[in-house]
Amino acid sequence: MNNNVDLIRSRLGKRGTLSGRSKFLPINYGEHRRRDRFRTSRSVVTADRERMPEPIVRAFGVLKKCAAKVNMEYGLDPMIGEAIMEAAQEVAEGKLNDHFPLVVWQTGSGTQSNMNANEVIANRAAEILGHKRGEKIVHPNDHVNRSQSSNDTFPTVMHIAAATEITSRVIPSLKNLHSSLESKSFEFKDIVKIGRTHTQDATPLTLGQEFGGYATQVIACTLPRIYQLAQGGTAVGTGLNTKKGFDVKIAAAVAEETNLPFVTAENKFEALAAHDACVETSGSLNTIATSLMKIANDIRFLGSGPRCGLGELALPENEPGSSIMPGKVNPTQCEALTMVCAQVMGNHVAVTIGGSNGHFELNVFKPVIASALLHSIRLIADASASFEKNCVRGIEANRERISKLLHESLMLVTSLNPKIGYDNAAAVAKKAHKVGCTLKHAAMKLGVLTSEEFDTLVVPEKMIGPSD
Amino acid sequence: MNNNVDLIRSRLGKRGTLSGRSKFLPINYGEHRRRDRFRTSRSVVTADRERMPEPIVRAFGVLKKCAAKVNMEYGLDPMIGEAIMEAAQEVAEGKLNDHFPLVVWQTGSGTQSNMNANEVIANRAAEILGHKRGEKIVHPNDHVNRSQSSNDTFPTVMHIAAATEITSRVIPSLKNLHSSLESKSFEFKDIVKIGRTHTQDATPLTLGQEFGGYATQVIACTLPRIYQLAQGGTAVGTGLNTKKGFDVKIAAAVAEETNLPFVTAENKFEALAAHDACVETSGSLNTIATSLMKIANDIRFLGSGPRCGLGELALPENEPGSSIMPGKVNPTQCEALTMVCAQVMGNHVAVTIGGSNGHFELNVFKPVIASALLHSIRLIADASASFEKNCVRGIEANRERISKLLHESLMLVTSLNPKIGYDNAAAVAKKAHKVGCTLKHAAMKLGVLTSEEFDTLVVPEKMIGPSD
Amino acid sequence: MNNNVDLIRSRLGKRGTLSGRSKFLPINYGEHRRRDRFRTSRSVVTADRERMPEPIVRAFGVLKKCAAKVNMEYGLDPMIGEAIMEAAQEVAEGKLNDHFPLVVWQTGSGTQSNMNANEVIANRAAEILGHKRGEKIVHPNDHVNRSQSSNDTFPTVMHIAAATEITSRVIPSLKNLHSSLESKSFEFKDIVKIGRTHTQDATPLTLGQEFGGYATQVIACTLPRIYQLAQGGTAVGTGLNTKKGFDVKIAAAVAEETNLPFVTAENKFEALAAHDACVETSGSLNTIATSLMKIANDIRFLGSGPRCGLGELALPENEPGSSIMPGKVNPTQCEALTMVCAQVMGNHVAVTIGGSNGHFELNVFKPVIASALLHSIRLIADASASFEKNCVRGIEANRERISKLLHESLMLVTSLNPKIGYDNAAAVAKKAHKVGCTLKHAAMKLGVLTSEEFDTLVVPEKMIGPSD
Amino acid sequence: MNNNVDLIRSRLGKRGTLSGRSKFLPINYGEHRRRDRFRTSRSVVTADRERMPEPIVRAFGVLKKCAAKVNMEYGLDPMIGEAIMEAAQEVAEGKLNDHFPLVVWQTGSGTQSNMNANEVIANRAAEILGHKRGEKIVHPNDHVNRSQSSNDTFPTVMHIAAATEITSRVIPSLKNLHSSLESKSFEFKDIVKIGRTHTQDATPLTLGQEFGGYATQVIACTLPRIYQLAQGGTAVGTGLNTKKGFDVKIAAAVAEETNLPFVTAENKFEALAAHDACVETSGSLNTIATSLMKIANDIRFLGSGPRCGLGELALPENEPGSSIMPGKVNPTQCEALTMVCAQVMGNHVAVTIGGSNGHFELNVFKPVIASALLHSIRLIADASASFEKNCVRGIEANRERISKLLHESLMLVTSLNPKIGYDNAAAVAKKAHKVGCTLKHAAMKLGVLTSEEFDTLVVPEKMIGPSD
Repeated sequence: MNNNVDLIRSRLGKRGTLSGRSKFLPINYGEHRRRDRFRTSRSVVTADRERMPEPIVRAFGVLKKCAAKVNMEYGLDPMIGEAIMEAAQEVAEGKLNDHFPLVVWQTGSGTQSNMNANEVIANRAAEILGHKRGEKIVHPNDHVNRSQSSNDTFPTVMHIAAATEITSRVIPSLKNLHSSLESKSFEFKDIVKIGRTHTQDATPLTLGQEFGGYATQVIACTLPRIYQLAQGGTAVGTGLNTKKGFDVKIAAAVAEETNLPFVTAENKFEALAAHDACVETSGSLNTIATSLMKIANDIRFLGSGPRCGLGELALPENEPGSSIMPGKVNPTQCEALTMVCAQVMGNHVAVTIGGSNGHFELNVFKPVIASALLHSIRLIADASASFEKNCVRGIEANRERISKLLHESLMLVTSLNPKIGYDNAAAVAKKAHKVGCTLKHAAMKLGVLTSEEFDTLVVPEKMIGPSD
Repeated sequence: MNNNVDLIRSRLGKRGTLSGRSKFLPINYGEHRRRDRFRTSRSVVTADRERMPEPIVRAFGVLKKCAAKVNMEYGLDPMIGEAIMEAAQEVAEGKLNDHFPLVVWQTGSGTQSNMNANEVIANRAAEILGHKRGEKIVHPNDHVNRSQSSNDTFPTVMHIAAATEITSRVIPSLKNLHSSLESKSFEFKDIVKIGRTHTQDATPLTLGQEFGGYATQVIACTLPRIYQLAQGGTAVGTGLNTKKGFDVKIAAAVAEETNLPFVTAENKFEALAAHDACVETSGSLNTIATSLMKIANDIRFLGSGPRCGLGELALPENEPGSSIMPGKVNPTQCEALTMVCAQVMGNHVAVTIGGSNGHFELNVFKPVIASALLHSIRLIADASASFEKNCVRGIEANRERISKLLHESLMLVTSLNPKIGYDNAAAVAKKAHKVGCTLKHAAMKLGVLTSEEFDTLVVPEKMIGPSD
Repeated sequence: MNNNVDLIRSRLGKRGTLSGRSKFLPINYGEHRRRDRFRTSRSVVTADRERMPEPIVRAFGVLKKCAAKVNMEYGLDPMIGEAIMEAAQEVAEGKLNDHFPLVVWQTGSGTQSNMNANEVIANRAAEILGHKRGEKIVHPNDHVNRSQSSNDTFPTVMHIAAATEITSRVIPSLKNLHSSLESKSFEFKDIVKIGRTHTQDATPLTLGQEFGGYATQVIACTLPRIYQLAQGGTAVGTGLNTKKGFDVKIAAAVAEETNLPFVTAENKFEALAAHDACVETSGSLNTIATSLMKIANDIRFLGSGPRCGLGELALPENEPGSSIMPGKVNPTQCEALTMVCAQVMGNHVAVTIGGSNGHFELNVFKPVIASALLHSIRLIADASASFEKNCVRGIEANRERISKLLHESLMLVTSLNPKIGYDNAAAVAKKAHKVGCTLKHAAMKLGVLTSEEFDTLVVPEKMIGPSD
Repeated sequence: MNNNVDLIRSRLGKRGTLSGRSKFLPINYGEHRRRDRFRTSRSVVTADRERMPEPIVRAFGVLKKCAAKVNMEYGLDPMIGEAIMEAAQEVAEGKLNDHFPLVVWQTGSGTQSNMNANEVIANRAAEILGHKRGEKIVHPNDHVNRSQSSNDTFPTVMHIAAATEITSRVIPSLKNLHSSLESKSFEFKDIVKIGRTHTQDATPLTLGQEFGGYATQVIACTLPRIYQLAQGGTAVGTGLNTKKGFDVKIAAAVAEETNLPFVTAENKFEALAAHDACVETSGSLNTIATSLMKIANDIRFLGSGPRCGLGELALPENEPGSSIMPGKVNPTQCEALTMVCAQVMGNHVAVTIGGSNGHFELNVFKPVIASALLHSIRLIADASASFEKNCVRGIEANRERISKLLHESLMLVTSLNPKIGYDNAAAVAKKAHKVGCTLKHAAMKLGVLTSEEFDTLVVPEKMIGPSD
């Protein structure tokens, strides 16, 4: 619905100067800390943690700029329209972030944040036109919010913010990580090592094959549904108070502004009342999180040691793990990444619950869906970038250790089957296991093979692929 | 790894006659009930609940049939190969289900279930060839499991089972539901009704538009990654003990057998060590669950009453809700569907946790991933089919009630803005709200409009779309 | 509400002979398999997987028996009352399980299952009195369901079933596992081993201390709220159609019957409309699942090898891991247990979502809450029993390997700090790490300690506790 | 493990002046925003969102103060000890928050945050003693961190922070909400209204009974395990480098300092390696979230309208819902609260996954567990306080509407059963439903009751409890 200028005031007035005084009563998150027995010099920090994510604020700038542009085609005074576009551009650039103090935990439609944007832009546009704030030469509702409603602007900025963050952060980070893992796969392509299944010794593979598996896991997601914009649905999806064609034009304007393939949603009722595209996108991040968790776990286990673990990999020493234990390199980057994955999986449940609880013409879990989704996006993007730069890139193979473990493995006995038969091969392996000697020693002791025969047959390097 | 014939015996012997006696120690699920103070005539029921899902068993039939076919190209004795194909076909058809008593909670690679399949097929193939069971004329490992390992067969049957179930059950059910909702959308296209946002009265829309939103939510998912098969990776992904080209040929054979576009996985290491495709597929079902939860919730609230609820819809009376309250129709189908959605969301978390916990060359949460994913698939398929048939199809609109609520709404005052201005319109609405009268009455009382003017301006039917 | 005798019929009639023919339309779970292109000899298996859990059926037996007993105090004909008690006892013993074919996915109040119970007991009681089924000499509603409603009986049986299963299965299993871990802790109390933090080598501890930590994790839960029964609230919590005192008496009767401390719920409105006690209980199982996941993961990593892993523990060889790799013992019990934990965590989300979605006077996610909770209960009980019996009990320490790793660790250098100072100690450790030699060798090479001094100072056995 | 003074530097140096320059490489959360094409005036905001929660920082103050106190008993120079206590007190009061810039996504043991605390306190203590920062007159490790390790301090501050926040915020907020709901229950005790089950009309209850159910849901949790402190376990739980008794004394000191019943953990190995107490506590918050979700949902549905919803409750008008729809009060507080509940349920999954992934002697998901748990604590505390103050306290009953709905309900027919029998009563109800008239009219029309008889029998006020 359209909202008027008076709603957002007291809270905004506290820190923003471009906005009025709202009667809005959000959860005063962190505010009561001031009544603590402990005075704090940064009580504001807690409230900051819960502020509407910055990408949402910036996306409002993009949207309001585009709306002014399209509204001028439908008769909005160009002088006012241009001023709105200029002010909105400043919001899009993050220059007016201080004027957006509202927290996530507000009304479920994000109405207050839309009104916040309308007021900030109206006041800033008035300034640009040489007027004072509050003169309403540019009206927050009649001009800035023209043909719009909180009910279609908020889902629209959710999609703009998510698509922008994914394309500008997640995808580049994952591509880098993919490349880095592929480089390692190439670098390690000749290092034959023991394979492990069930955490137990198994047949060999190359370290390059192992890293190739990781690289394959890290693929960028494509998310066509997130490019559908709700804008043009206004209050309940009908498009009441817009002109025909407004929805298509504004999606085109946003697409042009962002260089992303946004289109108008095929069904505006669904676009307001449900957030399946966000649940789906969160599901993609959840899948990526399971991939990254697996990769980081493997790398820290393969790098465990230095003396009493698997010790096949040497991870970059970014910081001493302890002042008294030289050589102790804690896999900090793996730990940070796996923690991020746990939070992303948790956020996915939050998004899912929010997405499933829409009622009638409007899902009113929008802010928590936006917040949790954008949190996951940033976490995946930043953590995978950090992991690539500070861990993967610098991983080195402990060739000596890898070779030692490989050749000690009883598992190589598999190669003897064709020559001496299963029963003899089994006897060799059992003897080696019982006595604690090498396979070769056992084979010779049992008289089933000569030293030369053994060396010819047991060649791990030939066990790493199908035969011709 | 390849497994020999002796592993699965005692358990299988209990109920299957086609298999041997295994030393395998799964969780004796439900078995200790027999020591209860209460004797039970169906103690077996509990164990049955935990059996490896039937689609996995059938997919083993499909896979082993295809493997025999391809193995004959690589030199398997045709007599034996044909017998294996015939026996495997019986497994694919579910005829030998009784011989697959193993539960989900076994080794994490599904090894026991693969060995179960090998033994059952070997014994049945021997019978087909006129031999007795146990004669090993057809060898479970050397013949049935040839060029295979549990480590590549189990992820392969997971994908075959999931893809088959999704294409044969989920997609048809969702398409039917989509069509049914679209039919209702068309049927209700002229019924203008009150919209609701924030659970509060808002501007009108048509009931057809509302159902159109539901229809848009129910779309079929496309899952390209599930069509990639691990087969050919054998023990750790290297393809040890297979011939070059085996992987491509077996994927082609499975594709032909199932009429589904299966291909060989581009990276076998990833295909064994991770289950991102299953996590992704489960994520799609999770998205569908949020959609269905929203739709079912709306329908039960719109159908609430008969006298003290919203009462806009009449749901089919499938069963009396109570013997003493005529007219009480409990929205049973909505309740069953929303419960299914809750379980699917929970199963998604189980799949996610399983998917994130793979280590080294093998993820050993395969059975729980398969079980939870296939459970969700069946639940979504069956519940959406039931919901379509027993609820959506029979929904009728209470036109009288819808019209009454629509015309009582204060929200229609919006239409007066252009004519009498915002302030007068607000005054009309406030008076009507305070006094409890109609908008028309209030407008006339305040002298801002005549009866004729009001009737010309306030036409809900004109509020359901953008203007020209 | 009270329900009449006619509701449950067609479904029951299919397999039960003690009940009538219902008009009830649940999700025909698995039924449409019969229309598959593949005939199946066990199509019923799928439907069986979804049947209302047996403990719910048995708890109905307990409750109906107690209700008849209390109702006789309030005037129910003793002949009829006694027959009901006898029939209900048979249900409590599981003898009539075949007559309870209904699935979980029914109405959200569990009404159909309550009616199922009423009809089966009425018919069986009639038989006991020498009458034919269907003669209604014992009336399902007027007699068996007297003073009850589905709305209070179903939450009551949920609590009875959960409390019974927890006390008879979960708690004994966890106590056994706790004892077994404590025994191992005692058995291993003198084995000093390397500690590992961040998956990296750290200071020593005893294997006994390590197992003592596991034992502490496995503690039994206390769940006071589950003992509160809803019975006596009837339709909406008011107790309409009951006599004063009925609620207290029936809770006392159930307590006597089960030997568990059941009491009447302090607030019947909450007891019908919410399921916080079930969410709380599921939360306890979720906590236990995180504990068991940690323990099982540690044990399989400590038992990894035999040659290329940590190899500190030897796990019982329950079944060969492979026919060609002697010594390969897959940690099957750990795998089954961790898979169970993943499912329990997923079920907890399902219970949470169900618990959060109650509306007005009745939460209608009862069957899925009951089903997921009881599934988790059985999984935890059976898996921890199996893990104790088939894994923990037989774990042995590889003392030689443990000792070797311990004495190779660079971490022991910590003991030198007080004698030669941090800088010298660091130099020793760095040299040993770089050269790959022992600490002792490095210390002597650097000339900071003699062989005797080193041996006196570096004693891992003294590093396993605080000093005096 | 003990960590030295050099680890935390560059990051701290950027904003803190009390600390050195670390080589630590956490995820540079939000930092790369500075390279965006958009300049931002508040790029720091994003990083702030991810900072280690303030209660952890404060708890470090409490712990380090207590450690200095106990260490003086064991020989720490009193001059230095007193200065540490004074500096630590400033940290406990939040005065030095600016010097704690580290983010959550660091090493999984929280080592960097412990070192951050050591350095800040050492430098500040030096200042207090009249020295310059960096002179190391007070040594971060030898003095501030004496007898401690990151591995026992971080789990200790997790427990101190959680217990403090729960007792000072969650419990008071929930108690207030409980009281407020109880007051409403008393205020509404005479308002008889229609009950609703399955979202359908059911038998009556009082509005007071309904609110009494809500009040019962809101109960404070008791969490004995969170009071167990890990302190004294040092590196791996053995207590190496501490003196006997240190663990008990420091727990006593913390208990005295906080007035909370902290004790030393019975098993330090478990206390470092697992976080079951945190998973359990998160589970309690998850249960509370399901309760609050149910209450908030009911209140917004009961308050839906004003004309086209249920309309039984009038919620406080905290802010206009729309400028053009007078009377439209969006249930903003309900929306904020339910969004908080969704996030708490999601955070619970994050905590669960973190808790289940500990390995060997240390769980390295500590920061994400702490962060998600403390986030949930604050969200529940602040949201329930806001909901109580801005919603529950001001709820009013629409008595007229409630009465109208009650008396229209067909459900009251139940009262006629004893007098005219089930069949006649059913006929009355069916006629009323079909014709759309009142029950009384139908009864008189059918000739089964006179007007007086009807009025005597049908008295909703007598249907709200069991009979004598």
